[in-house]
Amino acid sequence: MKTALPVTRQEDFAEWYQQVIRGADLAENAVVRGCMNIKPWGYAIWENIQQRFDRLLKATGHRNAYFPLLIPLSFLQREAQHVEGFAKECAVVTHHRLTNQDGELKPDPDARLEEPLIVRPTSETIVGDAFAKWIRSHKDLPLLINQWCNVMRWEMRPRMFLRTSEFLWQEGHTAHATAEEATREARLILDMYRDFALEALCIPVLAGEKSAGERFPGAVTTWSIEAMMQDGKALQAGTSHFLGQNFSRVYRIKFTDSLGEQLAWTTSWGMSTRLIGGVIMTHSDDNGLVLPPAIAPVHVRVLLLADEPEELARLRSYAQGLFDHGTVAATVSGEPIRYEMTAAGRRPGEAFWDAVRQGVPLIVQIGRREVDAGSVSVTRRTDADLRRQSIRAGDFLAHALPVLASMRRELLERARSFRDANLVTVASTAQLTKEFTSRATSPFALCPINLAAEAQPEVQSVLGEHKLSIRCLPEGRYQEELTPETKCIFTGIAATHIAVVARSY
Amino acid sequence: MKTALPVTRQEDFAEWYQQVIRGADLAENAVVRGCMNIKPWGYAIWENIQQRFDRLLKATGHRNAYFPLLIPLSFLQREAQHVEGFAKECAVVTHHRLTNQDGELKPDPDARLEEPLIVRPTSETIVGDAFAKWIRSHKDLPLLINQWCNVMRWEMRPRMFLRTSEFLWQEGHTAHATAEEATREARLILDMYRDFALEALCIPVLAGEKSAGERFPGAVTTWSIEAMMQDGKALQAGTSHFLGQNFSRVYRIKFTDSLGEQLAWTTSWGMSTRLIGGVIMTHSDDNGLVLPPAIAPVHVRVLLLADEPEELARLRSYAQGLFDHGTVAATVSGEPIRYEMTAAGRRPGEAFWDAVRQGVPLIVQIGRREVDAGSVSVTRRTDADLRRQSIRAGDFLAHALPVLASMRRELLERARSFRDANLVTVASTAQLTKEFTSRATSPFALCPINLAAEAQPEVQSVLGEHKLSIRCLPEGRYQEELTPETKCIFTGIAATHIAVVARSY
Repeated sequence: MKTALPVTRQEDFAEWYQQVIRGADLAENAVVRGCMNIKPWGYAIWENIQQRFDRLLKATGHRNAYFPLLIPLSFLQREAQHVEGFAKECAVVTHHRLTNQDGELKPDPDARLEEPLIVRPTSETIVGDAFAKWIRSHKDLPLLINQWCNVMRWEMRPRMFLRTSEFLWQEGHTAHATAEEATREARLILDMYRDFALEALCIPVLAGEKSAGERFPGAVTTWSIEAMMQDGKALQAGTSHFLGQNFSRVYRIKFTDSLGEQLAWTTSWGMSTRLIGGVIMTHSDDNGLVLPPAIAPVHVRVLLLADEPEELARLRSYAQGLFDHGTVAATVSGEPIRYEMTAAGRRPGEAFWDAVRQGVPLIVQIGRREVDAGSVSVTRRTDADLRRQSIRAGDFLAHALPVLASMRRELLERARSFRDANLVTVASTAQLTKEFTSRATSPFALCPINLAAEAQPEVQSVLGEHKLSIRCLPEGRYQEELTPETKCIFTGIAATHIAVVARSY
Repeated sequence: MKTALPVTRQEDFAEWYQQVIRGADLAENAVVRGCMNIKPWGYAIWENIQQRFDRLLKATGHRNAYFPLLIPLSFLQREAQHVEGFAKECAVVTHHRLTNQDGELKPDPDARLEEPLIVRPTSETIVGDAFAKWIRSHKDLPLLINQWCNVMRWEMRPRMFLRTSEFLWQEGHTAHATAEEATREARLILDMYRDFALEALCIPVLAGEKSAGERFPGAVTTWSIEAMMQDGKALQAGTSHFLGQNFSRVYRIKFTDSLGEQLAWTTSWGMSTRLIGGVIMTHSDDNGLVLPPAIAPVHVRVLLLADEPEELARLRSYAQGLFDHGTVAATVSGEPIRYEMTAAGRRPGEAFWDAVRQGVPLIVQIGRREVDAGSVSVTRRTDADLRRQSIRAGDFLAHALPVLASMRRELLERARSFRDANLVTVASTAQLTKEFTSRATSPFALCPINLAAEAQPEVQSVLGEHKLSIRCLPEGRYQEELTPETKCIFTGIAATHIAVVARSY
């Protein structure tokens, strides 16, 4: 079957990914290496993610704030693990002025900063310093702050949305009176990330704690959600950290209560534009982007198949009638239905395939024939055949709304089946090797492991050989497989956990 | 009369401004000089500004996108006036890694960038480069793009919200097939800025073209809206630029139509967190912040005057009843009413004054007495006496909604009266000197001027002597004062325009 993209997933997954982005006009590489221009269609997806998640954050008592882009070098240095984790990928500002030297613009030597500034890779340090000023007494706790912003981590092997030197994200920072409460917060956010991935993005993630080797620099505990892409690789789609008192100690975030002065307990957590890469690699097909309706810039695009102004106006008014919903509550995933109309002019086929490549959930075509018949032609983007269905115009909304609702279930179900088909339980390193060398799709391997042995060479060499990593210790039924008799597949000693081991982005 | 701030406008306007910000907990100076931490109450105001203006932009066909933070030095250099305007305030990134040298963290000499990168002071250059790729034919025009982001202009004399090295803004960038259409776009945006200032911020701005000496670096025409602060100084609150073909020439933004290949015509325009400074200095009083309801984080704060959990619960449920609006459409400035409840505990007075300093439009107090009487005590922030008014609980919404609506008119009217009282028509430099040396409030002076003489020493020396600048050439009735006989007050030759001359931020 001919497909709309020049390459299929089967032929070359990495190239297919780039072609989905190009075909849907989501983004492009920027002139600055490792950065991207996010184009309107891609940015509209991010805005939908942002607005939905922001509502959830506010409903749970979080408030937005904004902290500076630039961080003094000395700040980063205060938490030893933290600086270790980020020093190698920092963009460094050293001057605050340019000067013209012999006709060439250069950083002005007279405007060298006494202390270099770092473009924030994340804001624990600068927020920690602010929290130390904001918090005095236990009445100031919990302090639940979120920031939507850009961050910078210099990337040697960039890939659009997945790894870019600059990316957009939300970063939460909270402070609490007790370790229990801070842990509860970090866990609440993990749940919110998991539910958001399921409900808005239709991505069935595995949620769980990270092993010590995969923790955020400076965290006591890190949890993540891990999604399986269509090539079987894992994508870390959100992380939540219990930071203990590591940051409150170095930034002196203290509060007083009846017991006197104490250090606060803090958390941080983030989710980024990387999610868009996750959506692409979870749902899209060889015809291009496929979008969950909740985050689609429009739910319906109406193609008006005419060229002359008069005929176009007639079609437009006919099309407008489709959305005059009377008593029907025209909502999709809790928001008013979003639609747009496009004059397809003399190239209706091209306009149709543009909509397919862009992942518009419902594509409606209206020409003279449809108007005469009192109907519309409707194509569901999730239908593999992309066939047109003729619907009576008066029935359009009553037809479209349940279809859009069912798409969400369909996408989630499809992704879940795919993941479950590629989730294998592994009882030995021999089996691990076999699973990662013989299968068409690289799997998620559920491996009994003794985490105390994580850093040992016999574990790391097996993982390294197949380019694997411990993604997380998935919660719920997965851990139930563990019995006192279960042995670590790497060391043969008693297993402490079931880990998901996989290749990853 | 005792006031809630430690200093009044009369005593020290600059210090009063800082105290309003501190008293309302809007923002604070950050550790990095010239930057600020925008705290939740301040950021919520920005979010309201953002969301309202974003809706207007989308309704007029603009789409959001995102471009990189970092700009190659060579890009900035291509438009000569542009680089001239920004070179002196650029933060320059020179390294992409840190290294540990003898226990001290330093920019890694081996990770020096071949070409330094500039933290964007504005994005004409990088957007211009993208537009050159995005635009092929006349069908791609007009291209109407907006970006919400942070920008950086190194500031030697920073003031919170007004001049900060980093600030948040929206920057629009559009490309058109003709000069007329691009001019129309820049004018449309000017109108949107003026209307937004009036309707959402209650600031009666003067809108008009800038003189050549005050143009944006690289623009053919710049228009601005200028607001009068309570000390009489002007605040430039938004600018819109017709860039002609200056940027399309250097970035090669070309399109083809029936006439062949042509350069596009572009515009750019921006409005920033500076608006918050403008709102503060337009409306606030010696008791702290006063906010137009449209941008207030909450319209109503209910103070529950109790300490015990049981009594608090009773008051809370009573208070909740106030907002069960039945058939009343509970909207303020087109959005659902925003309210919050605060347990005022044992310090009701403190909670009341906090709400006053924060500019909450309506402050409601509920204690046992109110519950017993079936009433609530309501205070309007705009009432100079801040007196309590007792309202029947059942009438609360029907009372509050028109009061909130009238506040908008009241604030605008008050600001307009103030401005008009300090708007003087000046017919000679002697009168100009008198107006700027004798009045209690520094005025806006309407001066006939011949703009061809703007750069001449006799003009610049008079302006410089009183620290004045030409703010804009205000449109509408102001220009109607001009007759063929009107003389330029600086040169005595025929005047070409009426200019607003003022001190400014």
